[in-house]
Amino acid sequence: MVGILITFDGPDGGGKTTQLGLLAEHLRRSGRTVRCTREPGGTALGDKIRDLLLDPANAEMAARTEALLYMAARAQHVAEVIAPALARGEVVLSDRYADSTLVYQGAARRLAREDLVAINRFATGGVVPDLTILLDGDAATLGGRLAGRGDADRIEGEAAAFHAEVRRGFRELAAAEPERVRAVAADRGVDEVHRAVVAVVEEFLRRRAYG
Amino acid sequence: MVGILITFDGPDGGGKTTQLGLLAEHLRRSGRTVRCTREPGGTALGDKIRDLLLDPANAEMAARTEALLYMAARAQHVAEVIAPALARGEVVLSDRYADSTLVYQGAARRLAREDLVAINRFATGGVVPDLTILLDGDAATLGGRLAGRGDADRIEGEAAAFHAEVRRGFRELAAAEPERVRAVAADRGVDEVHRAVVAVVEEFLRRRAYG
Repeated sequence: MVGILITFDGPDGGGKTTQLGLLAEHLRRSGRTVRCTREPGGTALGDKIRDLLLDPANAEMAARTEALLYMAARAQHVAEVIAPALARGEVVLSDRYADSTLVYQGAARRLAREDLVAINRFATGGVVPDLTILLDGDAATLGGRLAGRGDADRIEGEAAAFHAEVRRGFRELAAAEPERVRAVAADRGVDEVHRAVVAVVEEFLRRRAYG
Repeated sequence: MVGILITFDGPDGGGKTTQLGLLAEHLRRSGRTVRCTREPGGTALGDKIRDLLLDPANAEMAARTEALLYMAARAQHVAEVIAPALARGEVVLSDRYADSTLVYQGAARRLAREDLVAINRFATGGVVPDLTILLDGDAATLGGRLAGRGDADRIEGEAAAFHAEVRRGFRELAAAEPERVRAVAADRGVDEVHRAVVAVVEEFLRRRAYG
């Protein structure tokens, strides 16, 4: 595959969606073909699965069910969107991807990491991000952004201890794979975060071109 | 777990639902507490997943997505219905279970069997049937029953070659695990099949009581 897969990940409220859009504009201005997508969802079927996952009415959902639904949406996302775009040589920007499951269902819901790694491999057919931007920052700042959004979905509505585990999980992920996962401080203004994201991406593209 | 899990499996048209109901009546008459359930579904959330799986509109569903959706419904089914009923000492009769995924998504869709075995283990938390009744018979007879039902769902609507692979997959399964998986010829009258099912189950219960 000749394209590039860049994923944005991290706790809710980190500004992933905003930063993904700004990076897409930046890359398009430099002449690249960019495909923006998101998880869970990214496909018509994936959006139906997303609805099941985020609906607060599905309060009885078991942790393993939740993990497998995320994986199902991901499998469709890779088959229908990501793999074809990469095969066409495009830059794919995804708002969340496989790392989210390792952190939310692994670190926070305490499912076995090795099971989730194996099921991710099955779901993705081995498509791994070339670069992952981890947007994280002060918990109070990120939480304040979420509060401004109105009704919380099923995951956002989890207790503070859950979200603390999520943040810890993402930090461990960045520490374990420093080459692929690059943390960018998100508790700053949008433009400032954007400049930091661009610096990381441009460095990655230079390394890739000459490495 | 002190209960007993008996699953009915096999190609469509084998009379699983009818035979499960008759066996439940038989076991209740002998004083047992019986819980009847089915896959995909068996729970409110599982039924929503079932709708996604069987809706012919979801024609673009990738094979891995399909497998993971069945697994997600199964995880919920075990957590919410099967494991609690077994813990209470009940006899659980399930219309399809983990074997269906090995056969439909493994043998017929050609996904790797070892992946499906591992994901089944994750989804079920290791809950394996004590006895599986495999209802199979002449393809033309079973196919004729399906034709009488009207509109086919997304799986029933697959080509004949797919259903031939399914039948072959179930035969291999019965050959590989002859203790657990007991084939009963389904291309006979309902009462005759029922007597054969009862004979298999009563033999299993005797072995279990004295074994």
